[in-house]
Amino acid sequence: MRIRFSGFDQKELARRETLFHIANGYLGMRASFEEGVPAGVRSVRGSYINGFYDSAPIHYEEKLYGFAQTQQSIVNIIDTQGMDILLDGERFSCFEGTLDHFEQELDMRRGVYTRDITWTSPKGKQTKLLFSRLASFDVQQLIVMQVQITPINWSGSIQITSSQHGDVVQDFDLHDPRKASVGKKMIDVREAVIRDGVLLMTAQTTQSDLVMASAVTHRSVPQLPAEYQTAGEVNEAVFTGAVEKNESLTLTKYCVFTDARRFDHPKEDALALLEQAAAADFADWAQKQQDYLNQFWHHAGASVTGDEGLNASLTWSMYTLLASAGRDGIGNIASKGLSGEGYEGHYFWDTEIYMFPFFLLTNPEIALQLLRSRAAMLPSAKEHAREMGHQTGALYAWRTITGSECSAYFPSGSAQYHINGAVARAFLTYYQATGDANFMVDTGAEILIETARLWMDAGHFYDGQFRIDSVTGPDEYSCVVNNNYYTNRSAQDHLNGLVSLCADLKKAGRLDAVIRKTGLTQEELGAFQKAAASMYLPFDETLGISAQDDAFLKKARMDLDSIPEEKFPLLLHYHPLYLYRHQVCKQADTVLAHFLYEEGESEDVIRKTYDYYEEITTHDSSLSECMFSMMAARTGQVEKAFSYYRASAVLDLEDTHGNTADGIHAANMGGCWMGIVFGFGGLRLHHDGLVFRPCLPKELEGYAFTLTYQGSLIKVTVDQTAARFEVLEGAGLDITVFGTRYVLKDKLSVPLNG
Amino acid sequence: MRIRFSGFDQKELARRETLFHIANGYLGMRASFEEGVPAGVRSVRGSYINGFYDSAPIHYEEKLYGFAQTQQSIVNIIDTQGMDILLDGERFSCFEGTLDHFEQELDMRRGVYTRDITWTSPKGKQTKLLFSRLASFDVQQLIVMQVQITPINWSGSIQITSSQHGDVVQDFDLHDPRKASVGKKMIDVREAVIRDGVLLMTAQTTQSDLVMASAVTHRSVPQLPAEYQTAGEVNEAVFTGAVEKNESLTLTKYCVFTDARRFDHPKEDALALLEQAAAADFADWAQKQQDYLNQFWHHAGASVTGDEGLNASLTWSMYTLLASAGRDGIGNIASKGLSGEGYEGHYFWDTEIYMFPFFLLTNPEIALQLLRSRAAMLPSAKEHAREMGHQTGALYAWRTITGSECSAYFPSGSAQYHINGAVARAFLTYYQATGDANFMVDTGAEILIETARLWMDAGHFYDGQFRIDSVTGPDEYSCVVNNNYYTNRSAQDHLNGLVSLCADLKKAGRLDAVIRKTGLTQEELGAFQKAAASMYLPFDETLGISAQDDAFLKKARMDLDSIPEEKFPLLLHYHPLYLYRHQVCKQADTVLAHFLYEEGESEDVIRKTYDYYEEITTHDSSLSECMFSMMAARTGQVEKAFSYYRASAVLDLEDTHGNTADGIHAANMGGCWMGIVFGFGGLRLHHDGLVFRPCLPKELEGYAFTLTYQGSLIKVTVDQTAARFEVLEGAGLDITVFGTRYVLKDKLSVPLNG
Repeated sequence: MRIRFSGFDQKELARRETLFHIANGYLGMRASFEEGVPAGVRSVRGSYINGFYDSAPIHYEEKLYGFAQTQQSIVNIIDTQGMDILLDGERFSCFEGTLDHFEQELDMRRGVYTRDITWTSPKGKQTKLLFSRLASFDVQQLIVMQVQITPINWSGSIQITSSQHGDVVQDFDLHDPRKASVGKKMIDVREAVIRDGVLLMTAQTTQSDLVMASAVTHRSVPQLPAEYQTAGEVNEAVFTGAVEKNESLTLTKYCVFTDARRFDHPKEDALALLEQAAAADFADWAQKQQDYLNQFWHHAGASVTGDEGLNASLTWSMYTLLASAGRDGIGNIASKGLSGEGYEGHYFWDTEIYMFPFFLLTNPEIALQLLRSRAAMLPSAKEHAREMGHQTGALYAWRTITGSECSAYFPSGSAQYHINGAVARAFLTYYQATGDANFMVDTGAEILIETARLWMDAGHFYDGQFRIDSVTGPDEYSCVVNNNYYTNRSAQDHLNGLVSLCADLKKAGRLDAVIRKTGLTQEELGAFQKAAASMYLPFDETLGISAQDDAFLKKARMDLDSIPEEKFPLLLHYHPLYLYRHQVCKQADTVLAHFLYEEGESEDVIRKTYDYYEEITTHDSSLSECMFSMMAARTGQVEKAFSYYRASAVLDLEDTHGNTADGIHAANMGGCWMGIVFGFGGLRLHHDGLVFRPCLPKELEGYAFTLTYQGSLIKVTVDQTAARFEVLEGAGLDITVFGTRYVLKDKLSVPLNG
Repeated sequence: MRIRFSGFDQKELARRETLFHIANGYLGMRASFEEGVPAGVRSVRGSYINGFYDSAPIHYEEKLYGFAQTQQSIVNIIDTQGMDILLDGERFSCFEGTLDHFEQELDMRRGVYTRDITWTSPKGKQTKLLFSRLASFDVQQLIVMQVQITPINWSGSIQITSSQHGDVVQDFDLHDPRKASVGKKMIDVREAVIRDGVLLMTAQTTQSDLVMASAVTHRSVPQLPAEYQTAGEVNEAVFTGAVEKNESLTLTKYCVFTDARRFDHPKEDALALLEQAAAADFADWAQKQQDYLNQFWHHAGASVTGDEGLNASLTWSMYTLLASAGRDGIGNIASKGLSGEGYEGHYFWDTEIYMFPFFLLTNPEIALQLLRSRAAMLPSAKEHAREMGHQTGALYAWRTITGSECSAYFPSGSAQYHINGAVARAFLTYYQATGDANFMVDTGAEILIETARLWMDAGHFYDGQFRIDSVTGPDEYSCVVNNNYYTNRSAQDHLNGLVSLCADLKKAGRLDAVIRKTGLTQEELGAFQKAAASMYLPFDETLGISAQDDAFLKKARMDLDSIPEEKFPLLLHYHPLYLYRHQVCKQADTVLAHFLYEEGESEDVIRKTYDYYEEITTHDSSLSECMFSMMAARTGQVEKAFSYYRASAVLDLEDTHGNTADGIHAANMGGCWMGIVFGFGGLRLHHDGLVFRPCLPKELEGYAFTLTYQGSLIKVTVDQTAARFEVLEGAGLDITVFGTRYVLKDKLSVPLNG
């Protein structure tokens, strides 16, 4: 369970900073070099707190009513990565001397990142340096770093200057015209002091006025004397000592971060947490980390056999999802997790559609916290609905940190009303998978009702059909269309699901509480039901396929084969209007709709729809290939499914989109897990329970995964001959495999019939 | 032929600066007070050269490929309006002492603006001050200003400090959040000197690096000694003298402006022009002005009887059109003319659809210059087409000064492909009305072909019909739609007109020259013809009306009656997506299409279409009411037509849109003229000639207008009983009145049958 890269290439520096970032859902720290890099080398040195943001007014040259007014951006927080190392008077740097050995590794069983180096200095002194880091899953405000230094062919002095920098700026790149050319400063230091060996710093964001604190302390073995100095926005501890050849010196650095969105007294709370943290050494924290992860892997143990690389990708995807997901009801999952500043650290629908299922079926407690984070945004979603002209209901922001809309181009931003359907689906599937009626009564029903009210206000009846005009579906190559199939289908499922939930709650005598809270009426429920039953779902009779929207199939088809490779992704080379005018998809949202909402859809339509849209889909979105993989498997094209799966699985590890340096593609991580479970495993959550249609690509020997559903932990193992189902914990349940209903009590084996 | 306002109210200052601006198609100067206004009083002190602009990069928070990159803005040029007046030691100001008399007047026969004041100073000294100005139609670089001062109850000293300011800034308003709160400086002074009594200044725009020059000299009667001073970016001439009670002192100020877009040596050329200008006195220049205007009014003599106010509006509209229209093949007509900085001084389709017809039918020489200005933009239009993804053809910029796209919101900017149809229509109707085949061979055909090629690339065949997807029609309350009726209809007319022109040129043996220049082929002409013949024009069979686009009539209808008055204009109170989702029109473009392209359309469809869209049109665009007036007249609703006409005619004079301070609504000026000629006069340019369906609203006694068509000058007079047609100059021609074809040789009278 390791990701490992050997050797050092400065062109890969920023990408590796992403790949080896450490995070725990609250804190994230990129794998920047402790000792720094020379000026001019592309590096994004950053640490982040989930949901800790600064704001700025959005400027428009032509501003229309209701345009989003305030940007929110995740903040590059106080930097505690720095450790400047003098080895017998020579400064350690990977850019000087000789790197005899250089290896970066993320151990996902232990939750520890290491950088293992053997370095020969310009003067010929050889030293082994082992840097280790972890972002604690137990105490989420804690990062523990360590460096172990072992002279190989010399004895002498060692000096380590460990720093805490408040003079940080956001990512910038002189050579990339799409990025800022000057680093924007988003925090100002309020206090920088050193007391009893603790480097303490508080800072405040420039516009959003949010306070954060950072407290750092050290432990050295052998114990070294330290000098402390504060200058401007920098605190430093300078450790000096002597070391003998082949003996080791170890410095451990405890870094605690707190913020005012979670803590009433960030400074005091940070100091208290630090005291607790420093009582244990690195190995202790690593052990706790491993204990936590043992539990995690027990529930989330998906694996493939027959392809080590893919198995590592899959493991890393699950690990990174855990590392990215907020679990305090405030932080959600940013599209780059906590690994970078891409997309400003915003939360999108990706959470609900691509990542939530992983947590729902392996770790429902985190899934619940993700729902709570959305629930906390309800007031903002109501406000956003009003800005968009709706007198009633709630519309979730397309991209946001706190809940307010941050999209500066509404046609592929606020117009994506389907985010309401995604949020609703997360609440509904949570209820289905957990049966947690309490949460639905207290919180979930209100979210579902307010978002449903928006559909009623956005749509209207025409000619007996319920239509939803002027929205954008997930495919951003067609914006502001009428009756986007995906949107209408998700609204239909949302409305039906809500009606059904209310019937459940009524039966249980718990609907009244919901009615009191939301003002829901029987007439309203009737209207929901009628709209769902009358929902217009565009369909082309001639082609026998779902139509992406009212007009899509009448547009000119884009001949993708005639477009040279360097013109992809199309969005970087074609005006949006040109794309809107053509049948071309960044991702195919009809295919996605058939993935999410297959019940009632014929096999023929699913297959023909897949075939039609596949030819005009560019996969310029990182959300696309994993979906095509799953739907290729669904339609019996197993080898094609595997090919898509591989492309999706290596996206970040091989940097196939060329922007991994800006951060991971978190949704694709979800896709990587779903590709096994929903793709090859063929899992679907039907209204009457779990459905499987497993298959196995010939490139793999087999795969396995565990699922938590209605309190039971099930293990599914698939090899060339059969799919085996086993109840590991909890009661059994009914499952459907290849269309046959089984009562799964203990174990069940179903032959693979393809 | 006068516009006159008496009394002074500082709240009206900026509006009056617009109403009484002087202009001649090259220069414009707002009617700011020579003596200035106190700080904090809302005034937009400005002078402009048509098409003289500065540029700036356009910033987008979310920038997609092909978005317009560079803004262009008309520049507030060197300010020569200043004349600071000391009357026996007291500074003249309308904000102190007593205004016994205050009258502003634009004399449109003489082309002179005057401000006539009797003022009693705080110390009780009463003085008459008469300020006069003209922007010469003969020497377009010249503005002549004059002040005549006559003490009424005192004798004593007078001092006039006449200035030339280079430290000008663009309009700003501390109290309007939609405007800049700091005046942006767009020119830097390069040279400021005074030589032989000439105040000479050159300046350069900050980003576009365009040079302009201003040269000023004076003449005083009685001749006064002058002192000159230059300080920083200001040149001043200080005249001092004594005057007896009831005697007058007159200072004339000659102001010449030149720019590097027209002059190779702006400074030297300005000096030469100034020398010529100063050789004549104010009265001489006023006489030349009158001579020019006599000719103008002879050809553009539209008038109404029975409503003095409307007649003044009509006169002012024609006068202002003349004052606004560039006639050097470089300047075009900005949407605010030369009266202000609104819409950045950009040229839109307004020129071709709303203003060009006036020039075409009263002053074809200026019409030709407007076409030349568009022709000069062809390279930019080709480039713009490439930016928008088209491999062939030319797409005119939606808003521009030099030709490059300046729209920062493409859904109601670049997506308005119909501007190509508007430009084409101007060229085609010019050819029809003048028969100027030389121009078509040299220039016009190329424009028509390149813009036609764009339709072929933007549209495509589906199910035997030629469709144009993803464009925006004139109604900006529905953006990026498929098969906008107006757009498709105008493309059809464009393609047909081009094919017909080519047939003409072929007959005349002149098509080969066009083919050599443009690479036009027979196949291409055939494709144009086929696309036009197969053009898809959305029609609703049930309602029996033209459909604004494919989807419009299926959307939810907006109930305009339920919306409170303060929510209009809707664009200031509703998110665009909300408007896009509803049947609601800023202006109704089907109605406009039936105005421009009525041939082949049934009376029933025209009337039903009018009725349907009228109910959902807000007239939030200043282009709307004049069009509804004309089409109300066309559909026999004469009193309704009059009501719309009045609303349109007083738009600026009564400031009904509340933004006249930012500049006139030039297109509405064209609409005011068209409202008489095309509205009540019922004129249409059919392919076989002029067609009239005159009517007379009961509020008017009659109206008259003159037209130039195919070299003939015709006068049309309508009263309660008949429409009279008279050939004033040139040969006669065939006309159609109420469906009957007449040979008009000398005079013709047709009874009004309604």
